[in-house]
Amino acid sequence: MWNPELNRPEAINEYVYLDYNATTPVDPRVAQVLYEASLKYLNPSSIHPLGSKARKALEEARDKIASILNIKPSEILFTSGGTEANNIAIQGIAYSLAKRGKKHLITSSIEHASVKNTFKKLEEDGFQVTYLPVSPEGIVDLEALKDSLRDDTALVSVMWVNNEIGTIQPVKEIVDITKERSKAYVHIDGVQALGKLKIDLSDLGADLVSFSAHKIYGPKGVGMLYVKTGVPLRGIFGGGDQEKGLRPGTENLPGILAFAKALEIMVEEMDQYLPYLKQLRDRLEEKVLSEIPESRVYGKGAPRVPTVSGLGFYAVEGEALLSLLGVDGFCVSSRSACSSRKLEPSHVLLAMGVPHEWAHGSIRVSLGKYVRESDIDSFLSSLKKAVERLREISPIWRAKSQV
Amino acid sequence: MWNPELNRPEAINEYVYLDYNATTPVDPRVAQVLYEASLKYLNPSSIHPLGSKARKALEEARDKIASILNIKPSEILFTSGGTEANNIAIQGIAYSLAKRGKKHLITSSIEHASVKNTFKKLEEDGFQVTYLPVSPEGIVDLEALKDSLRDDTALVSVMWVNNEIGTIQPVKEIVDITKERSKAYVHIDGVQALGKLKIDLSDLGADLVSFSAHKIYGPKGVGMLYVKTGVPLRGIFGGGDQEKGLRPGTENLPGILAFAKALEIMVEEMDQYLPYLKQLRDRLEEKVLSEIPESRVYGKGAPRVPTVSGLGFYAVEGEALLSLLGVDGFCVSSRSACSSRKLEPSHVLLAMGVPHEWAHGSIRVSLGKYVRESDIDSFLSSLKKAVERLREISPIWRAKSQV
Repeated sequence: MWNPELNRPEAINEYVYLDYNATTPVDPRVAQVLYEASLKYLNPSSIHPLGSKARKALEEARDKIASILNIKPSEILFTSGGTEANNIAIQGIAYSLAKRGKKHLITSSIEHASVKNTFKKLEEDGFQVTYLPVSPEGIVDLEALKDSLRDDTALVSVMWVNNEIGTIQPVKEIVDITKERSKAYVHIDGVQALGKLKIDLSDLGADLVSFSAHKIYGPKGVGMLYVKTGVPLRGIFGGGDQEKGLRPGTENLPGILAFAKALEIMVEEMDQYLPYLKQLRDRLEEKVLSEIPESRVYGKGAPRVPTVSGLGFYAVEGEALLSLLGVDGFCVSSRSACSSRKLEPSHVLLAMGVPHEWAHGSIRVSLGKYVRESDIDSFLSSLKKAVERLREISPIWRAKSQV
Repeated sequence: MWNPELNRPEAINEYVYLDYNATTPVDPRVAQVLYEASLKYLNPSSIHPLGSKARKALEEARDKIASILNIKPSEILFTSGGTEANNIAIQGIAYSLAKRGKKHLITSSIEHASVKNTFKKLEEDGFQVTYLPVSPEGIVDLEALKDSLRDDTALVSVMWVNNEIGTIQPVKEIVDITKERSKAYVHIDGVQALGKLKIDLSDLGADLVSFSAHKIYGPKGVGMLYVKTGVPLRGIFGGGDQEKGLRPGTENLPGILAFAKALEIMVEEMDQYLPYLKQLRDRLEEKVLSEIPESRVYGKGAPRVPTVSGLGFYAVEGEALLSLLGVDGFCVSSRSACSSRKLEPSHVLLAMGVPHEWAHGSIRVSLGKYVRESDIDSFLSSLKKAVERLREISPIWRAKSQV
């Protein structure tokens, strides 16, 4: 059985942290690598002995990560995070293929802001974007994909795992359908898949896949883009020759070494903590549905990763719920942290056809390896009370009750 | 007198490191902040209590840095480094003003790759770029600037301190001339100025200034762009709302806190180590010029920062010289690390009119706070021997000697 007390970081001592999809606390063993590498290495691009020493460490990390993901080391581009990886991939293909007259792009209607807003930006610049609909369970519509592919489609970009509700998209089918029917490239935003699914990129067959270190107990400020050999990208930056000129600037070597360490730990541990977290997640959902009236679990009928629950409560304001839970010492979110300051309901839930009065009352509970069983129990009791309290003052709830 | 043994990092134990312009070893006190913050903080964009705690730390760092640079906290955009800051500034102004029909840009002929290649990229996209010439001493020609400013000039971008030879550009005059004669914005690449000059951004009057943490004993993967209130930038990334949407993606809070620490230490120490380093640099140059025939110091007649010497040796191959010095345990470079794998001579020296047979034989010696007096003495002796040895086998040198 997994022990959530192992290597526990101080970051989550004061509160019950249930927002692992926003960021994971850094594993202390990873922080140690970050610290030691910061003291040890200089610039990997320098051609003197200390440059060579740093370059050797950089290439060893690249080899290690490539072997974990089953790709070639030369197919890894280290980036400053998932957002940058998504931008390099999507803008890179778009501007590269626009020269050949291909200006049609396909994505889904439930992507993370770093993908969604990159496509919005490309629309402003004259590209045509198709946003694939999703089922009520939050799964991308493959028939719509088939119908959308055109001769001038440059790219299909779909997320592997949705960040708000955890649904696993049929990425292998998306790759196969796209490749059978078109010459478009396929990009997969894998940020929320890493550490939650077995990943073999050669088996997947996608052209581009993005990952971020800080979602797997690694440091912030580091990510990577897998770029299959031969895939043409136009760089979005001007700069030096680092990372084939596609991500210029002095390599963040300590961050990269810490990312490699986080991946190694992930491989060692995930088979232990995932079944443990699934059990906690299932208990949480079962109790919510049975003990809180008019509650929902979004995407429950679809394939999902075992670490996140998108919960809905009729006639409750999500932000108010977060505040009450926060006062009780629980850290959860209403959606992705990147969009957390917006007041509209989640675009993911709206795309699934969830009505506004439900979508406003949603929260995301995301679990990770330091969550204790007792955290879930105390969270449940606080959640029940908070929902009740908010419904007492909700005119919608009272109107409904009086019917 | 400055003591170079203070807080000495292990990174430079094995070799004599004289390549501080490529990167500085991380100050152990900075690495400690990076380590502790990695263990302590979660996502500053989350709206729960642990998100607020992280956001508070982020904003305190922003306040601290703003006060050091004499700007408003809201004028700081944290980035993943200097290259990204330069790209956000230059592409941001270019694409923002292109909408108003302004597609002329001005830069100098001696910029770092992250500026130079960003302008090359903009030229490919239909912008017109004027590259200002420099004097034989490596100072940008202000008369040429005056002649180049046009009604449709959107941006003037000039580096504060040249990375290869240390010349200080007349940035205040560049700002004044530009503002007097045009409505163009001014961007200053300040990466090599920080820690080597007194910096007061309000006094400078530029619209945009880039800095990088890893040039001032801070971490890699962190930098910032000063954006004066009201300066319009079109973002180059699609993503979340972080850093006003101009640098989306989860903030690298540990890196930012470490950057703030590096700046605080810089303010405390630079008045002590700069005069010490000037003395070492002056002795190095004096001995080189007096003891190695046919040698030069580039930019010697111009205002320069006291930490770098661009040295030239007639009829010597710079890369061969680096190799011999490396064998002797000295780490220097032939130019910027970002372009170190190119074989052409430095574009900076060529722009200064240095002939090829000199430009090929140049090295950059850059000093920092951990350099000992004895390092300079041993380096000089190794350098003399290496130059002699290479000239013995140089056909150009023998041809010259026989005349």
